Amino acid sequence: FLRQNVAKLHESELGDLLEAIQPDQRLALVKLLGDDFDLTALTEVDETIRMEIVDQMPNEQIAAAIGDLDSDDAVYILEDLDKEDREEILAQLPFTERVRLSRALDYPESSAGRRMQTEFVAVPPFWTIGQTIDYMREEEDLPESFTQIFVIDPTFKLLGVIDLDRILRTKRQVKIETIMRETNYPVPADMDQEEAAQLFEQYDLLSAAVVDDNGRLVGVLTIDDIVDVMQEEAEEDIMRLGGVGDEELSDSIKDTSRSRVPWLLVNLFTAFMAASVIGLFDATIQQIVALAVLMPIVAGMGGNAASQTMTVTVRALATRDLDIHNSWRIIRREAGVGLLNGVLFGVLIGLVAGLWFQDPNIGGIIATAMLINMMAAALAGIMVPLLLDKFGADPAVASAVFVTTITDITGFFAFLGLATWWFAIG
Amino acid sequence: FLRQNVAKLHESELGDLLEAIQPDQRLALVKLLGDDFDLTALTEVDETIRMEIVDQMPNEQIAAAIGDLDSDDAVYILEDLDKEDREEILAQLPFTERVRLSRALDYPESSAGRRMQTEFVAVPPFWTIGQTIDYMREEEDLPESFTQIFVIDPTFKLLGVIDLDRILRTKRQVKIETIMRETNYPVPADMDQEEAAQLFEQYDLLSAAVVDDNGRLVGVLTIDDIVDVMQEEAEEDIMRLGGVGDEELSDSIKDTSRSRVPWLLVNLFTAFMAASVIGLFDATIQQIVALAVLMPIVAGMGGNAASQTMTVTVRALATRDLDIHNSWRIIRREAGVGLLNGVLFGVLIGLVAGLWFQDPNIGGIIATAMLINMMAAALAGIMVPLLLDKFGADPAVASAVFVTTITDITGFFAFLGLATWWFAIG
Ligand SMILES: [Mg+2]
Ligand SMILES: [Mg+2]
Ligand SMILES: [Mg+2]
Ligand SMILES: [Mg+2]
Ligand SMILES: [Mg+2]
Ligand SMILES: [Mg+2]
Ligand SMILES: [Mg+2]
Ligand SMILES: [Mg+2]
Ligand SMILES: [Mg+2]
Ligand SMILES: [Mg+2]
Ligand SMILES: [Mg+2]
Ligand SMILES: [Mg+2]
Ligand SMILES: [Mg+2]
Repeated sequence: FLRQNVAKLHESELGDLLEAIQPDQRLALVKLLGDDFDLTALTEVDETIRMEIVDQMPNEQIAAAIGDLDSDDAVYILEDLDKEDREEILAQLPFTERVRLSRALDYPESSAGRRMQTEFVAVPPFWTIGQTIDYMREEEDLPESFTQIFVIDPTFKLLGVIDLDRILRTKRQVKIETIMRETNYPVPADMDQEEAAQLFEQYDLLSAAVVDDNGRLVGVLTIDDIVDVMQEEAEEDIMRLGGVGDEELSDSIKDTSRSRVPWLLVNLFTAFMAASVIGLFDATIQQIVALAVLMPIVAGMGGNAASQTMTVTVRALATRDLDIHNSWRIIRREAGVGLLNGVLFGVLIGLVAGLWFQDPNIGGIIATAMLINMMAAALAGIMVPLLLDKFGADPAVASAVFVTTITDITGFFAFLGLATWWFAIG
Repeated sequence: FLRQNVAKLHESELGDLLEAIQPDQRLALVKLLGDDFDLTALTEVDETIRMEIVDQMPNEQIAAAIGDLDSDDAVYILEDLDKEDREEILAQLPFTERVRLSRALDYPESSAGRRMQTEFVAVPPFWTIGQTIDYMREEEDLPESFTQIFVIDPTFKLLGVIDLDRILRTKRQVKIETIMRETNYPVPADMDQEEAAQLFEQYDLLSAAVVDDNGRLVGVLTIDDIVDVMQEEAEEDIMRLGGVGDEELSDSIKDTSRSRVPWLLVNLFTAFMAASVIGLFDATIQQIVALAVLMPIVAGMGGNAASQTMTVTVRALATRDLDIHNSWRIIRREAGVGLLNGVLFGVLIGLVAGLWFQDPNIGGIIATAMLINMMAAALAGIMVPLLLDKFGADPAVASAVFVTTITDITGFFAFLGLATWWFAIG
């Protein structure tokens, strides 16, 4: 009974179910389903869970089931296995299947070649619409679903593409070559998946031909998989900005802790750097304890302003809205915002702090330090991600650490330094 | 010459071009293009730029051009206009066009009804595949592109849906009703666009029927527009977590500053709260300046650990991976991670600080305070977003402020309080 109901689930629902139940129930469920278990569901679960299930399944069973999958889903599962298991599974597949999967697996990780499916419909340019429709009516071995067909020459060189609605609107006797359109955006197999996703987004594609170095059609990227890429990439940026690595919701306490420690360690190091800046001024603090009370405000507000600028910059870099054409304009804008908000919050904090401690000196000092730190925040917030990007690093990963280090150190140094100097000459 | 070249651009390229050039050139370009200007490009630019261009175009020109757009693109442009202009433009449209657009505009903002296009292909269930293909060959007024056709009864009630590839594989004499499939996921017109996007992601949809309260087909959502929704929603979460509102890259210094001030103000208020906690212990700090040097480390590390947990929680809530079924498990996990990392970093910081100031008391105090604050960080990091979500607030907006307030205050209070108590009894 359970088996029947579960077998009717959509692959993504089965995936959600696998994620929801207890670890020891997962294998029991897979065993219970037996041949009814659709491996596609494994593309919908966290990597940890996928590995856990795949590791326990006999390689023979995987090999038997993997032939039913679209090649892209098969590759998605195979790519995470260790080399030995992968070879063993591949060896048990029929020849053509094996060649297709191996070829996709040979492309670099996260490339279009890894994400493409090798099942597609391709016809020669001299066929008529009628011939093409008849072919599709008779051919058994078509992809499970498709939205366009490709036009190729005998060497598989890509000549053009036709959307299915165009075929349906066209009379039977019309030749394919007269209605096909040039593919403006054939995707090289080694293009990064993130870049391919940008093409889909910009040109509203439903699928795209993937070609090898010689312009030969090797596969097709489909929007449903690109949507997953987009979600992954957005997730990656959010997580990086929050100082989190590749962890997943299903990770254990130990794994989660381990993945978060590195970032905390780096931050600890920079926190001690900032603390040693404070240490330089311990004599001044001992005299005027108000400084110790107020200094986190200067550093913290700078940190917040910097994180605003940094977030906007990192996001704009990810969506390619920010590039060399407009980076100067944005740098100038951020500097202006830093100046404006610096004056605004400098005056505000100066007044409140001056009244609190009944000392106009303190008010003036914190106002000036605030202005300096807000300017530093604006510049760090935009320059750090821009420079990281320029040197090929992912701006989302390291920006936060650099930026808050700069605002902490500038904040403490400006505030305590100014105070020391002012009261020394006063 | 320029006009010819620009007219050949893809709408999104024209949009990028409009964003790249100087503000005063934008209108000149639109004027130069005249009737060749494809208003669809306006759906690809920042809202500020869209408003700037649309405000300057005569309503007659907009009305003349808007009839050529897909209804969803027309609605996208019209919805941001002020009521008066919108009415004037609608009044100049042909009756059916006007009714369609008005109906879509009547649905709430960000609903499926607003994002749907009202152009679709629908056929009765008793037609054959042959009739359907002939209809598509002859009918002039089909949508520009489509990937499925809908099956409806005479009252427009949605009966089913067929993908185009299914039609092409089926023999002419087969009846539509025998190959249509039930639409498992018809989208109610007032469903939020974010929820609709979830359906697309989960079930790998290319398009989805939008139905009114009576189950009648009123429009269709397409994946290319849903991709934009997904990008917008991911962007919104990244921006909210970074304390940035709805600003755009094209905003001026003044507008940018204005949009960032509120968050900085809220943070300023909480920074003063944290400062006043420090103020409670000024006597202790005066005696032991080392406390002032070290206290930002305790607060800052807590803030970083909390932002890790918060980021994971906010993201998991957005992707619906975290819900009541597993929230207890995740709360327990985060508490465990907080404890583990608290012990780890407590010991580490305790050792370093103890050696730095040559005082085991200080080492012990900071280690204990660190452990307390890491636990507080873990609980705040998960409970704040969960509670905000439970009470219908967007967890991405306010979480950061609440969470850092908690870790700042806990950090200062635990560290300085423990020190005061320890040295008082010591
Ligand atoms: Mg899922
Ligand atoms: Mg993988
Ligand atoms: Mg990548
Ligand atoms: Mg698009
Ligand atoms: Mg579009
Ligand atoms: Mg696929
Ligand atoms: Mg990235
Ligand atoms: Mg753009
Ligand atoms: Mg809008
Ligand atoms: Mg999906
Ligand atoms: Mg899928
Ligand atoms: Mg559209
Ligand atoms: Mg949201």
